[in-house]
Amino acid sequence: MKGVLVINFKAYESAFNLTLAENLAREASRISSSLGIRVILAVPSVLAMKLRELHEDIYLEHVDPVDFGAHTGRIPPASLKILGIKGSIINHSEHKLILREVHKVIKTLNGVGVESIACGDTPSEVSALAYMNPTMIAVEPPELIGTGISVSKARPEVITESLEAIKRVGKDLPLLAGAGITSEADVRRAIELGAKGVLVASAVMKAKDPVKVMRSLAEPLSSV
Amino acid sequence: MKGVLVINFKAYESAFNLTLAENLAREASRISSSLGIRVILAVPSVLAMKLRELHEDIYLEHVDPVDFGAHTGRIPPASLKILGIKGSIINHSEHKLILREVHKVIKTLNGVGVESIACGDTPSEVSALAYMNPTMIAVEPPELIGTGISVSKARPEVITESLEAIKRVGKDLPLLAGAGITSEADVRRAIELGAKGVLVASAVMKAKDPVKVMRSLAEPLSSV
Amino acid sequence: MKGVLVINFKAYESAFNLTLAENLAREASRISSSLGIRVILAVPSVLAMKLRELHEDIYLEHVDPVDFGAHTGRIPPASLKILGIKGSIINHSEHKLILREVHKVIKTLNGVGVESIACGDTPSEVSALAYMNPTMIAVEPPELIGTGISVSKARPEVITESLEAIKRVGKDLPLLAGAGITSEADVRRAIELGAKGVLVASAVMKAKDPVKVMRSLAEPLSSV
Amino acid sequence: MKGVLVINFKAYESAFNLTLAENLAREASRISSSLGIRVILAVPSVLAMKLRELHEDIYLEHVDPVDFGAHTGRIPPASLKILGIKGSIINHSEHKLILREVHKVIKTLNGVGVESIACGDTPSEVSALAYMNPTMIAVEPPELIGTGISVSKARPEVITESLEAIKRVGKDLPLLAGAGITSEADVRRAIELGAKGVLVASAVMKAKDPVKVMRSLAEPLSSV
Repeated sequence: MKGVLVINFKAYESAFNLTLAENLAREASRISSSLGIRVILAVPSVLAMKLRELHEDIYLEHVDPVDFGAHTGRIPPASLKILGIKGSIINHSEHKLILREVHKVIKTLNGVGVESIACGDTPSEVSALAYMNPTMIAVEPPELIGTGISVSKARPEVITESLEAIKRVGKDLPLLAGAGITSEADVRRAIELGAKGVLVASAVMKAKDPVKVMRSLAEPLSSV
Repeated sequence: MKGVLVINFKAYESAFNLTLAENLAREASRISSSLGIRVILAVPSVLAMKLRELHEDIYLEHVDPVDFGAHTGRIPPASLKILGIKGSIINHSEHKLILREVHKVIKTLNGVGVESIACGDTPSEVSALAYMNPTMIAVEPPELIGTGISVSKARPEVITESLEAIKRVGKDLPLLAGAGITSEADVRRAIELGAKGVLVASAVMKAKDPVKVMRSLAEPLSSV
Repeated sequence: MKGVLVINFKAYESAFNLTLAENLAREASRISSSLGIRVILAVPSVLAMKLRELHEDIYLEHVDPVDFGAHTGRIPPASLKILGIKGSIINHSEHKLILREVHKVIKTLNGVGVESIACGDTPSEVSALAYMNPTMIAVEPPELIGTGISVSKARPEVITESLEAIKRVGKDLPLLAGAGITSEADVRRAIELGAKGVLVASAVMKAKDPVKVMRSLAEPLSSV
Repeated sequence: MKGVLVINFKAYESAFNLTLAENLAREASRISSSLGIRVILAVPSVLAMKLRELHEDIYLEHVDPVDFGAHTGRIPPASLKILGIKGSIINHSEHKLILREVHKVIKTLNGVGVESIACGDTPSEVSALAYMNPTMIAVEPPELIGTGISVSKARPEVITESLEAIKRVGKDLPLLAGAGITSEADVRRAIELGAKGVLVASAVMKAKDPVKVMRSLAEPLSSV
């Protein structure tokens, strides 16, 4: 498995800047090839179809626990298959669902062959997610998100205990580490602890030069 | 003010059929010009940017009561301005918010010059919405949605009392009628009762020939 | 109609002090008789049955929009009739429901002859509530709740416009004013503006001597 | 550890019948002593203080993930300590919270020495709960709740895999089994599979003679 860099665009104002988004998509495509890693862009739903034309690894930031039907303003997981969207984040710290709904979404995505990154706050939540067989699991202590204080440095045990939690369930799912990741050193440390990649948002989306920051964070992942 | 036909794509499987969606968008554009009415397509967020290239009157089905920022998987109202999306439905029967949030969304949309159709179940809810100055108000008795039993025939007083509610607040906002609208006669009746247009979903999206149904429902609106 | 003082216990630590609660209940009973006003105590559900033995005007702070049935941890409105509880606050600023649910609760309470105080943030929300015929309506600008800056002084137009909103709907429902009410002068001003009473919480529940503060806030209501 | 019978009153109309509730409380007290088991009554919050006078093992059906403060209509976990209430169910299938909130409630209850029964739908959810150290864990497949089709007969693997999930986390927490339990045989089978007790609701609360059914379901637990 390759190293994975996930850029979560969130709903920052910069996330809706189409020119920036397209630059990030083109560069993500380049970096993926040149470094032999995956660079996943998790983007606002309104931009996904546009960006998918420039980079194949486009995810949604969320999908809803509904089937096709009379659900105004919801995105059913199975629609991603029809639309050719690669995957979705689910259960992000800022968009939590109850576990039953997380399970429904992952089961539907698995059923149609669309990827998922399921997020957990803690090894406890990671443990529950491991039973559901998402494509990847991301662990992010909510109190560090957006702080610039990296989980890999400030709370390394969250990563190691999450890996342990997955193993206990008898699964071999790749773990991503998130929250506060801002530097190459943060990424390297996460990898050393056993993560297969990282999830970043503000470090890129609020940077002066987002493309440059994305590139630098990608670098250490080529060695995974 | 022109007559208004709103097609709410909802999350029907057909809503994610890009070919169908594009056909509807092209035809909506044609009908609008030829009949001198507005045909608004309220579409899944993932399709909005694509369809906007074919038809200018594209709405989202929902936007979220959040500002720009760290809100994974949410669409801030102000982003529609940046993206060039004409407007959004808000507070639909299948995606209700508390009133405080509805107000926040409408205020933000008004502030950036993006349109809104605020939905209410009853004259009571319509009354509250009228204070908020959305672009239009749609009233839909939830118990008739998707039934094919038309509000304009089965519950005409919902339309007339909603018009009265808006007047009492001292506003002159256009009212759309929705729920169970399936035939030209249903549309005509709504207009006779004082509505400026109609909101339809299943009648078009679950039809064998959605484009044809859309065309027939548009017809009576040219006389508004 | 008599003047009305509502003390909302909320979930302050003091709200669960049974000795204090019983003192407030006994004194509320005394004040009601001596001043010829209503003193309603809106109390945590866990204390309602105890306090009802000391004072007849006990309300719950919230009831749930559910019927009798398999709803773990919910209080159906109709249960209040069985339990002999006088009424309930509904749709408080800190416990908002969507309007459809507010309506369901008020309709059920009215049907079984239990009182309700429906809360609104703004004249817009008050307008919608007026259609539902609660026993009373309380208006509280959320930004002033708990601040000690009184709605009657800082935002008098919220009271007068709410009265106007009720009148426009053709109803004659008593309006209570809340948010930031801390002194007798605040109460007097609310009455002068046309309110039939006030809703207070922190001014009493966080006071050194809650019974004394309750007594002083009740005073001006005898003249309503 | 003794065998445990939990009767969840839910919001059935019978749950608010004070005479019935008091009979159940008195009999629960008798059965507990005579059989040497625990009979926990999880009751509507409005009845808890009354019933606590008749039986010490009274639980709430739910508590809210809030601290003491300005939270109208919420019950903070720490209030149970003040009120002398033994414990609470949390995260019941009909009152789900996101995991972060479940954790907050259990941590607070543990901190003040109040018991908790944390509910999970599946071994996956049980796994997450085990990390949080509730007093007991109850597993209930939602699709069997209220059906009369017993989890212990129809889905025995849910019980054994939940036991395995707890063990994998390295904990030794008692597991209760729930959903569809209606007969002594259902209880016996749950015990044989390794459960320490059962959670029942409709079988008792909707019975012609609830006290008699409670008694019969308690019988097999004396052998745990």
